[in-house]
Amino acid sequence: MTLPSLRLKSNSDRRIKAGHLWVFSNEVDTAQTPLTGFEPGQEAQLESASGKPLGLVCMSPTNLICARMHSRDVGHGLDKSLLVHRIQVALSLREKLFDKPFYRLVYGDADLLPGLVVDRFGDYLVVQIATPGMERVREAIVEALVQVLKPAGVLFKNDSGARKAEDLPSYVEAAFGEVPERIALEENGVRFEAPVWTGQKTGWFYDHRMNRARLAPYVNGKRVLDLYSYIGGWGVQAAVMGATEVMCVDSSAPALDMVEHNAGLNGVAEKMAVVEGDVMDALRELKSAGEKFDVVIADPPAFIKKRKDVRNGEAAYRRLNEQAMRLLNKDGILVSASCSMHLAEENLREILLASSRHLDRHLVITERGFQGPDHPLHPAIPETGYIKSLFCRVLPV
Amino acid sequence: MTLPSLRLKSNSDRRIKAGHLWVFSNEVDTAQTPLTGFEPGQEAQLESASGKPLGLVCMSPTNLICARMHSRDVGHGLDKSLLVHRIQVALSLREKLFDKPFYRLVYGDADLLPGLVVDRFGDYLVVQIATPGMERVREAIVEALVQVLKPAGVLFKNDSGARKAEDLPSYVEAAFGEVPERIALEENGVRFEAPVWTGQKTGWFYDHRMNRARLAPYVNGKRVLDLYSYIGGWGVQAAVMGATEVMCVDSSAPALDMVEHNAGLNGVAEKMAVVEGDVMDALRELKSAGEKFDVVIADPPAFIKKRKDVRNGEAAYRRLNEQAMRLLNKDGILVSASCSMHLAEENLREILLASSRHLDRHLVITERGFQGPDHPLHPAIPETGYIKSLFCRVLPV
Repeated sequence: MTLPSLRLKSNSDRRIKAGHLWVFSNEVDTAQTPLTGFEPGQEAQLESASGKPLGLVCMSPTNLICARMHSRDVGHGLDKSLLVHRIQVALSLREKLFDKPFYRLVYGDADLLPGLVVDRFGDYLVVQIATPGMERVREAIVEALVQVLKPAGVLFKNDSGARKAEDLPSYVEAAFGEVPERIALEENGVRFEAPVWTGQKTGWFYDHRMNRARLAPYVNGKRVLDLYSYIGGWGVQAAVMGATEVMCVDSSAPALDMVEHNAGLNGVAEKMAVVEGDVMDALRELKSAGEKFDVVIADPPAFIKKRKDVRNGEAAYRRLNEQAMRLLNKDGILVSASCSMHLAEENLREILLASSRHLDRHLVITERGFQGPDHPLHPAIPETGYIKSLFCRVLPV
Repeated sequence: MTLPSLRLKSNSDRRIKAGHLWVFSNEVDTAQTPLTGFEPGQEAQLESASGKPLGLVCMSPTNLICARMHSRDVGHGLDKSLLVHRIQVALSLREKLFDKPFYRLVYGDADLLPGLVVDRFGDYLVVQIATPGMERVREAIVEALVQVLKPAGVLFKNDSGARKAEDLPSYVEAAFGEVPERIALEENGVRFEAPVWTGQKTGWFYDHRMNRARLAPYVNGKRVLDLYSYIGGWGVQAAVMGATEVMCVDSSAPALDMVEHNAGLNGVAEKMAVVEGDVMDALRELKSAGEKFDVVIADPPAFIKKRKDVRNGEAAYRRLNEQAMRLLNKDGILVSASCSMHLAEENLREILLASSRHLDRHLVITERGFQGPDHPLHPAIPETGYIKSLFCRVLPV
């Protein structure tokens, strides 16, 4: 089988040679290999300007990122065999790291499977595809997962915003076996059920696992507020780790039902309170009611989705963190998280510093956390690192 | 008691108001308050150009950093009373975080005690003073520590390079009680003894505690190489965490004696091998002997001590990490650490990426670690963050 060539312009191979996996459309020698000559998802051989093979890519010909590399070995095309190999390599890391089968099994570029995410919930797998290249081999992905993991069910949760930019349809469907509405998982020894069909992303955020694990010494014996709680990832763990009282705030009633359900699974339902509503409104109401907390956790959805949102998004992080800080007791802890890829940790630190100075507090950062090891960072692709979690001690000056 | 004023130039109060604690000599209105008018270590009231009090500082009048602030409240001078308060506030964080009394108790600026470091080893305290301001109150520091902690002994380990720049004498002496040559500590459940009189810095590096804690799943059942091992902080913990074999390399024979001693304390002496010599030489010899390891830990002393050393230092990190990577088995882990304040984590990531590409490997970062929470980061003072630890999975492409 001969693959079509994708020819780069002179010197445009430097980034790829330095480790990156993406090709931008302005790097392509479109005189030699016009992008209009490719189908979305088609596999191609990437070549330098001099015709040297660099690896194999899948095409997104109408996209700014017009190709993503899945192999530097031109002998290994994206088929079931390569998928089985890549999944086995990904699995061997996770099996080494975790006692129980609850983790992100495949993390896109870092596992050399650009566009593919697989979260494992024991016998169930939730798959997210973000590129036409992976969409093309979706049957092979399911076959490979079934071969390697023998799951009871595989769910395609293919409804992300990223798919729209690639003109991929939005759908959620069981690709193999039966997939129940809620699936059990365990994180840091705490039990949860996640609504994989209808929840956010794959239904659960494994990325903050290690950051949540650090809560224990901070929340033991304390009153905790969990903002944007979703189904209780932080809040329920705080309760199990010894918080005396946890209040979860979220705008989604079904998410808060799951908070209560998950609290019940761990016998901490009586410690939990839930507040349905807009978080910023809730913060104002808690302030005027004179409520105080020892620990406030602020882990909002991405306020900065695109580069053009940076200014407004940073202002939103500032408002949230400063209002959260106002509710702290005298020697309090603010856990400030962000999943915005376009907000560097340094910028979040600056926002926290500015908020603390505005309130005339002394703030230091005791824990700097990132995504867990089942979301490895690809050092050439900064976009693969997106989670920040800063534990701040906030004191009077 | 009236303190002399230190007057800032117009607009030079912005950094201080934004949270920083240091005054640079070019920010001082030396017409109003000449630096030559201050004694080293003298306390002064910092004022804006308009005469507004900003806080209290101690002077290093001949230094580029000519003053450091210990209080924004001008009513609280640097005396035993303030020291007791600051130490109590620092202690309350550590007692919350750690089950056992082994930690950095005072971390300079982050604990609002610029120039003072105190490491706690149970009933013993090791103190490092880096500024004339703290040197002036050294008796009060000891009294405050004795009052708050009732230690059996307090050691001044005042032999750092930073003291030379401040014209402070170099000395190591017991300031209170009796301080034995070696003091016991525990880290992540592993027992050690540290040579507090003669060792590096305070005798022990608590800063990497949380990073070493992450070793367990990576080293279990594996062969490990620990470069610049010092007294076995990483290597002995790796052995206790289940490594089958650990080789420690260091140029210091006394340090390697302590590796063996510490291994013996934990019943893992038979797993340890020590190699005395230059690390780069040892790496060459291990390579030519065909030795391979599953995990290589490279935690060297700071290769970049000053800003002017950046280029040479980065080249040294590159050589070390690339040679370390060559010794890895096929699916190996490189733990690459740096304590150079002038090497950003991003630069270390770039160095690791470049090394991996040069060797035609696929490298991803599974763990990004920083200093532990007993070394809080002051968000206005980047110098308070210096530890980086990257766990890299290194695979064939």
